[in-house]
Amino acid sequence: MIRVVIIGSGNVAQHLIKAFAKSNIIEIVQAFSRNKESLENIIDSSKITTNFDDLADADLYIISVSDNAIAEVSHQLYIEKKLVVHTSGSIPITDLDDKNRKGVFYPLQTFSKNKEINFDIIPICLEAENNEDYKLLETLAKSISNQVFNINSNQRKALHVSAVFVNNFVNHLYKIGNDICNENNIPFEILQPLILETANKITLLSPNEAQTGPAKRNDTQTINTHLQFLTNENQKEIYKILTKSIIDNGKKL
Amino acid sequence: MIRVVIIGSGNVAQHLIKAFAKSNIIEIVQAFSRNKESLENIIDSSKITTNFDDLADADLYIISVSDNAIAEVSHQLYIEKKLVVHTSGSIPITDLDDKNRKGVFYPLQTFSKNKEINFDIIPICLEAENNEDYKLLETLAKSISNQVFNINSNQRKALHVSAVFVNNFVNHLYKIGNDICNENNIPFEILQPLILETANKITLLSPNEAQTGPAKRNDTQTINTHLQFLTNENQKEIYKILTKSIIDNGKKL
Repeated sequence: MIRVVIIGSGNVAQHLIKAFAKSNIIEIVQAFSRNKESLENIIDSSKITTNFDDLADADLYIISVSDNAIAEVSHQLYIEKKLVVHTSGSIPITDLDDKNRKGVFYPLQTFSKNKEINFDIIPICLEAENNEDYKLLETLAKSISNQVFNINSNQRKALHVSAVFVNNFVNHLYKIGNDICNENNIPFEILQPLILETANKITLLSPNEAQTGPAKRNDTQTINTHLQFLTNENQKEIYKILTKSIIDNGKKL
Repeated sequence: MIRVVIIGSGNVAQHLIKAFAKSNIIEIVQAFSRNKESLENIIDSSKITTNFDDLADADLYIISVSDNAIAEVSHQLYIEKKLVVHTSGSIPITDLDDKNRKGVFYPLQTFSKNKEINFDIIPICLEAENNEDYKLLETLAKSISNQVFNINSNQRKALHVSAVFVNNFVNHLYKIGNDICNENNIPFEILQPLILETANKITLLSPNEAQTGPAKRNDTQTINTHLQFLTNENQKEIYKILTKSIIDNGKKL
């Protein structure tokens, strides 16, 4: 068994605890949370500690706290020469304190509190300073997911920026679509099949092949009709810049 | 049986022919195509005509050609006082020629030639000038889809603009994510589960509730790290404007 201590009680920590509980090679020996209540529905309360000086002995310590707290939490750990990893997409491995062996265990997915996740298909991006630690992380990761990748800190930064485009920004475009529907008394549900199909398509076609629409066709007439229709300056500006980007991309091909 | 003539042989026409063929209340009496070959794998070749003066008698004529040809094609039809509809999201009903009764039969989905579509869940947006014609379109639509909506030309324009945001623009953001992955030797597949989950989420949460990420948290440090990472000016500009839009939206709430 790989004995694991989880430090943190947010979305990622909670989903990891649930996924680890299903693995037969992982034993969660302890979970640290500032307030016991946040984890009580997920793990036996005897395993929860609120005292940072009371960390149990383990093979692996996973820091799953907000990005800006990772360095400080890793510094506060009184343990030494242990394997300590964080779960963040945007923090380099070097931000962890030098007194322990460092690693990263980054599950690339968007986690919500009230939505169950199938961990099998979540890509887990691993990084470690030495081969032995990497192997341990890999064993652990493969016991909960079929998609495990060796990703260094530079690549992880690139991945995190990409994720902002395909998740955060995409969701904001859904929001704009929703706003336009609301303003015109159209139920947003009407767009859901299109949204799902747009996402599903990229499992069969590259985004370049899948591109359609007035900008792709350089259909100036439809583009101008749309710009006249949009009265919100912010929506108009986003329409213009993304249309220009699609047209420019077409010219490069 | 509702007897239908389909004019056109593009993606939408082909998918409609396939969907109609499965309905037991629709009879496709004829399909018009400039070149017979484009439809020969889909419909009995005796039903294909390449001669515009040879249109069969029917209850409904569906013009499914490119947007800028709809008005001209409807003008060229020698039939009169028949029900003639187009299938476009962006063309008003009034663009159809006055000599026939007008309508719109707009399936809101992104169609690719080589990807099968489950029509049951495709929203079909209908418009007609009188109640009787609307009822016929509704009967037809409900025989191939569970999602049928009464949408006037103004609403359809709004819907089309929304569709550009949630399909065309979203797909372009996938493309940017793909480019960033390529530049950093990361397989794009690693982002696919995130892309699918982002789309699936909006069937359970509103886009507003589903929003996460550095812009939503107003996490200036991560935003600046990302902007420093991006060297492509176009990507940088898109990052900035969408981040600003998410932050401004947060202030309004």
